[in-house]
Amino acid sequence: MKSDSYSLAEAAQILTKILKRTDTEAVPLDLAPGRVLGEDLVADRMVPPFARSPYDGYALMGGDTAGATVSAPVTLAVTEEIRAGDVPKIPLTPGHAAKILTGAPVPPGCDAVVKYETTTFTDKNVTISRVVAPGSNVIPAGEDMRAGQMLLARGHLIPPAVPGVLAALSRREVCVHRKPAVALICTGDELTETGEPLPYGKIYNTSRYTIASYLESFGCRVAYTDTAPDNAAAIADTIARYLPDVDMIVTTGGVSVGDYDKVRAAQALLGAATPLGDAYVPFASPSAISILADKLLLGLSGNPGTAAVTMLTFGAALVRHIGGRQEILPRKIRAQLTGPVKSKIGRTQTIRGSLSTENGTLRFTPAGDYYANGVISSLIHCDALGTVPAETEALSAGDWIAGYELFI
Amino acid sequence: MKSDSYSLAEAAQILTKILKRTDTEAVPLDLAPGRVLGEDLVADRMVPPFARSPYDGYALMGGDTAGATVSAPVTLAVTEEIRAGDVPKIPLTPGHAAKILTGAPVPPGCDAVVKYETTTFTDKNVTISRVVAPGSNVIPAGEDMRAGQMLLARGHLIPPAVPGVLAALSRREVCVHRKPAVALICTGDELTETGEPLPYGKIYNTSRYTIASYLESFGCRVAYTDTAPDNAAAIADTIARYLPDVDMIVTTGGVSVGDYDKVRAAQALLGAATPLGDAYVPFASPSAISILADKLLLGLSGNPGTAAVTMLTFGAALVRHIGGRQEILPRKIRAQLTGPVKSKIGRTQTIRGSLSTENGTLRFTPAGDYYANGVISSLIHCDALGTVPAETEALSAGDWIAGYELFI
Repeated sequence: MKSDSYSLAEAAQILTKILKRTDTEAVPLDLAPGRVLGEDLVADRMVPPFARSPYDGYALMGGDTAGATVSAPVTLAVTEEIRAGDVPKIPLTPGHAAKILTGAPVPPGCDAVVKYETTTFTDKNVTISRVVAPGSNVIPAGEDMRAGQMLLARGHLIPPAVPGVLAALSRREVCVHRKPAVALICTGDELTETGEPLPYGKIYNTSRYTIASYLESFGCRVAYTDTAPDNAAAIADTIARYLPDVDMIVTTGGVSVGDYDKVRAAQALLGAATPLGDAYVPFASPSAISILADKLLLGLSGNPGTAAVTMLTFGAALVRHIGGRQEILPRKIRAQLTGPVKSKIGRTQTIRGSLSTENGTLRFTPAGDYYANGVISSLIHCDALGTVPAETEALSAGDWIAGYELFI
Repeated sequence: MKSDSYSLAEAAQILTKILKRTDTEAVPLDLAPGRVLGEDLVADRMVPPFARSPYDGYALMGGDTAGATVSAPVTLAVTEEIRAGDVPKIPLTPGHAAKILTGAPVPPGCDAVVKYETTTFTDKNVTISRVVAPGSNVIPAGEDMRAGQMLLARGHLIPPAVPGVLAALSRREVCVHRKPAVALICTGDELTETGEPLPYGKIYNTSRYTIASYLESFGCRVAYTDTAPDNAAAIADTIARYLPDVDMIVTTGGVSVGDYDKVRAAQALLGAATPLGDAYVPFASPSAISILADKLLLGLSGNPGTAAVTMLTFGAALVRHIGGRQEILPRKIRAQLTGPVKSKIGRTQTIRGSLSTENGTLRFTPAGDYYANGVISSLIHCDALGTVPAETEALSAGDWIAGYELFI
């Protein structure tokens, strides 16, 4: 079966050449965080548009304070008081100063501000006992953003700082990629819905929740969840029913090579293309990945732990691409183990764990049951995957491990 | 004014002794990720409840294969076929095996499974040409979770892996802390709503969006946003109007010691307590923090950058506490600078930046304009704050910097 093998990056590249990104839509600022930016965010103006004072104090011409000392202070006549939001009315001329409050625009002619705490003052005069250099305490126009400045490129996840930046540019909306709509179809006659009595031999359908939650965390909208019996024709019918309304279909179960593995057969029945052929892809085995009507059919394992790991790695990369992200692959890392890990000689082992840092060093803490295919509880503490090489039987605390950081 | 000073942790401890956590509510599994767990999540059963096969193959008694080799294979009679979801009907007896599919429960008497690829078989018999040790390829009951096992403690953020774990425990709902409801009131006569024409001397109200987005990212529900004029009585009225309907009030502006700094006066008018007095708190200067009717009044700076940094650090800690989180303080880090940083001698400088890792080392990339009080664009690339000591004027790429990792 293993006619070939691809790296994660190679396999992703083959599929992302075919799979389209979602179109874009405008959303109000408050709804932007967590969405994928659908435009290059470029400042179209100077922010702030005027020079202003960072403090409560006095706006003046620095040259007026030449030679000022405690024993020979300079006294300037106060022209006006300028508050934040005010328009300065009186241009400064030599020998004059304006009382100015935090955030207020400096008046024409002003090239420096002194904090009021460092002066003595009356309503009419301010006395300064030191030299104030031109440029002191004046926030220049454009301090925050300059016209033409690239702030965030299309395809990035929008962090919570962006709505305020957009507001500074007088924007009320921003262009984002539409969330990919997904139908999640779980197959397997052994599956029982949570909360129902569990007959002997059956298991609860956990992937319905695990995979749906991961999809949502990667920015998808899980538009439909359904189940299908272990029957290729029924699975094909279910896929065909949802496909027109979604951007991709995710199934669980029926992807091994055994007698009751029907998802691959269902994809074939529908005439889906398999650009990866039978090639081995890290973290994606077993799975059944094909493309139908330019949409992704992602057939995950029926083993809940295996399905989750495929979703967190290769699946996440494909989902991010469809959702408009530029960075789609999990990041390669190297980290120091905080505890021991056992593996099996002769087989590359994927280890679940969580990352932290200590004194500047990245650390990898193996999750409790760190690799069994059927285990999902250790995914609670899993934001990284480590790789134990085939020739290694065990690693100790302090050893270094290579792997991937999983990210939203 | 600086009668005293507290560390972030000390100041947070003083306030969290007074501020109550929100009560809890039940939510369906799909809505749990990103919420704060309101119960200790403990397994109440074994998962899986039965021993099962990880592969398609044959369930057998390991002892039956004693001495089996290629030249002297063992042939066992096939009793039945067991699929995932089936109940095994026939207990194994010596000389017998059951065909078994991935995930199916092993029949009574079985202590090992062989993969079908390593056998030769007919409908009635299976021939095995090697010794199969008891315990091979049988997933034990309780492999994933054991009754009484602590999975995630109250007060943790719920990661997307949790709904599947809950489903495995037959849960349909989970107890979470109610999202803190917040009223955000922006003060400052210089503020103009985004999208409106901007008169000279005015600025757009960016904190309305920045602070609201941060609050939402920390798990709050921003129930109200409003503005108030630069007038202590009007600000007090606005606070008093929203206070009964929310868990906390956040204001921006009016917290410096200058002439038009009215939020402190408004809090005093309402009789709010100030357990921190005039003490200096890192990242929280200037701000006006008080408590009224056991609720937090968080008065942030009118400088949008300063307000954001206070919100990301001390504000976030208080908000997390109210929302039920156990870990509330930003994490202390040490990281290697990827580029130079300039500072001012005589003053501890906070530097914005983003974290990454390279070959196991934590790295800190300073954001473009990394500290100006009025700058918000550099917050786009800010998930950490570095601290440049007062006696340091500049740092170079490769130097180490101490600071805090900001987290959701």
